[in-house]
Amino acid sequence: MENIDKLQLLSDEEATLRLNKVRTEMRKSEVGAILISDNANIFYLTGRVFTGYIYISSKETPVRFYVRRPVGLTGDNISYIRKIEDIPALLATQSEPVPEVVGIEMDTTSYSDCSRMLKALAVSRPVNANAVMRAARSVKTPLQIQLAAESGIKHESVYRKIPSVYRPGMTDVELQIEIEYLSRKAGCLGQFRISGQSMEIFMGNILAGDNADTPTPYDFAMGGGGQHPSLPVGADGTVIRPGMSVMVDCNGNFTGYMTDMTRVFAPSPLPDEALAAHECSRAICRRIAEIGKPGTEAKTLYEEARSIAREAGFEKYFMGHRQQAGFIGHGVGIEINESPVIAPRSRDILTEGNIIALEPKFVIPGVGAVGIENTYVVENNKPMRCLTNAPEEIIIFEHK
Amino acid sequence: MENIDKLQLLSDEEATLRLNKVRTEMRKSEVGAILISDNANIFYLTGRVFTGYIYISSKETPVRFYVRRPVGLTGDNISYIRKIEDIPALLATQSEPVPEVVGIEMDTTSYSDCSRMLKALAVSRPVNANAVMRAARSVKTPLQIQLAAESGIKHESVYRKIPSVYRPGMTDVELQIEIEYLSRKAGCLGQFRISGQSMEIFMGNILAGDNADTPTPYDFAMGGGGQHPSLPVGADGTVIRPGMSVMVDCNGNFTGYMTDMTRVFAPSPLPDEALAAHECSRAICRRIAEIGKPGTEAKTLYEEARSIAREAGFEKYFMGHRQQAGFIGHGVGIEINESPVIAPRSRDILTEGNIIALEPKFVIPGVGAVGIENTYVVENNKPMRCLTNAPEEIIIFEHK
Repeated sequence: MENIDKLQLLSDEEATLRLNKVRTEMRKSEVGAILISDNANIFYLTGRVFTGYIYISSKETPVRFYVRRPVGLTGDNISYIRKIEDIPALLATQSEPVPEVVGIEMDTTSYSDCSRMLKALAVSRPVNANAVMRAARSVKTPLQIQLAAESGIKHESVYRKIPSVYRPGMTDVELQIEIEYLSRKAGCLGQFRISGQSMEIFMGNILAGDNADTPTPYDFAMGGGGQHPSLPVGADGTVIRPGMSVMVDCNGNFTGYMTDMTRVFAPSPLPDEALAAHECSRAICRRIAEIGKPGTEAKTLYEEARSIAREAGFEKYFMGHRQQAGFIGHGVGIEINESPVIAPRSRDILTEGNIIALEPKFVIPGVGAVGIENTYVVENNKPMRCLTNAPEEIIIFEHK
Repeated sequence: MENIDKLQLLSDEEATLRLNKVRTEMRKSEVGAILISDNANIFYLTGRVFTGYIYISSKETPVRFYVRRPVGLTGDNISYIRKIEDIPALLATQSEPVPEVVGIEMDTTSYSDCSRMLKALAVSRPVNANAVMRAARSVKTPLQIQLAAESGIKHESVYRKIPSVYRPGMTDVELQIEIEYLSRKAGCLGQFRISGQSMEIFMGNILAGDNADTPTPYDFAMGGGGQHPSLPVGADGTVIRPGMSVMVDCNGNFTGYMTDMTRVFAPSPLPDEALAAHECSRAICRRIAEIGKPGTEAKTLYEEARSIAREAGFEKYFMGHRQQAGFIGHGVGIEINESPVIAPRSRDILTEGNIIALEPKFVIPGVGAVGIENTYVVENNKPMRCLTNAPEEIIIFEHK
């Protein structure tokens, strides 16, 4: 890798664009400064991960980088520190009085670490910096959209190869391992970034037959019993048999910016009801892509999706059967669960540059999960642009 | 999976054994009750993950399970809740007055979630439940040791196959993908559980040549530039060439209980200095396994390791060269970084039933990383028992 010692890996222009988004959100919420230590937010601001803190004032003073590891990073406004308590003295010599309202990442940083930060900086009015960062990160820059689009192309290339690794009699776990192997060879980074302490998954979710109806502890759109009770989601060792659907929702992180895509495969043609539900999912995606314009309320998209499902007679299978997910779409980028959220009580409003995964899915008892998921960019004056263009029809595995 | 709807997947005996460890630690610290929501701790207490809370009083009252997801779990003392604020009313009907000193997981739960818990339960004296859980989890039960030993056997079987997937001219990333594929096919769950917000890695660390000397942001023993700046650790695309060492430190999570094991491979015999440093690492492991008895201070093990390295003339390469790790060993179990920590200022004292990974490693400029890592059980009146028994010598890849 070139320039591995440079802290700031973004171009000046890109770094400024992102910083301006953050400062705009800070000023909207009257936040004087934020102190950032979450890996995803550090990656957003610098194009790399380091352990330490980024201090951003809402004023046009320089961004300060307080680094613990790795050693040897170079660039402007970098101070090496051992601990958070080293920051106030450095800020003082850098003539930066700590403002009254300081944002820290209350949603992603532990109580211990946040408490220590608040004490070290003697913050009188702490606010939640995750709100600021989530809002800034929800509107992607052209470079971020390009990187997500590159992930989408590679993601698609992997999905097109899935039929080539299917063997009759294999289990869902065996198929998943083959897909992981295809993905990694195509450049997938493996890491599946999710925000939220209680969310975890390994590279994706493959659901064969009725395992799709097994409820999971996690707040994903679909469930599955999983390989082991320590990670109860997804493939559970079900042998893939004729009559079952096989839903594949696997990691699209090829560039640090993820795409999210789901497709359905089957070892034999599925019953008409499952085909109709699958087509209903495609129709919902088309409709939402059509009406999802800047200014649209996210909750109206959810209602539209539900009403299409209802009219088609599939409401009882919508987003799960035994346990139903409460959303049909979500922002995606550095993490798989960004803003906006497409849910009944979402207050989010679509903005140009949002990247949104739509996943209206159905669980048909006796068959399994059907429906698709695509990742879209919200654009001005046109339908949402799809970044995940693998064929949407149910693909029948050829028996070799 | 059988009994997928049963919340408590541990036998009564095993659940009681673990609960008693937790209550012993609670009483030592005069903690009246703890409220647990971290996945790793929930898995420890129940043998499964769910989203919700476990309430444990230091008194012999029933453990209470407050579940949000998945739907349908069965067993005693389970209440389904929508939010943390539902708990106090339930506790009141269950005649459990909230005690004065309540522990919450301050190190692993976000500031937002902890604040909400403290407010909901009107806690007057919050303490850190992670300290209690870390202490309890550091002493493994016979079942946990057996599960770790099973992981070790499978882990070893994967490592023995590594030479079979090497091809001359391949990169470290290509080798890593083949090892991941071997591991997953052998039953590795993939998920690599680490405690700590800023720690992340995908399935393991493969270091070829001087990439071993690239500092990483993470607090692992070794570094590496990584495939991408969003995850700067491990293999970076280096082509494996004669003269380089290839250190393999890959995921041993086959049972929910991990083993940690490192071995060194090379496409051609390495220089004498590297061989000597590798033998020094083995000697350190043997020596520490010999003196690591219940009652031994962890810091004395660190000092012993460093003094062996110093006497052998390898101190400057010990635990890295450009950036040195501050520990040579760590507890391992559900997560890769448990107690005790084998570090200079550790206050931990070895106890029967600790499972400890020792990884005295060296980075030799121009060659790469050498040394081994094994996972051991601390036993009474005998040397630590090794769970990771792949051959320790540097394995020369045969050119086919």
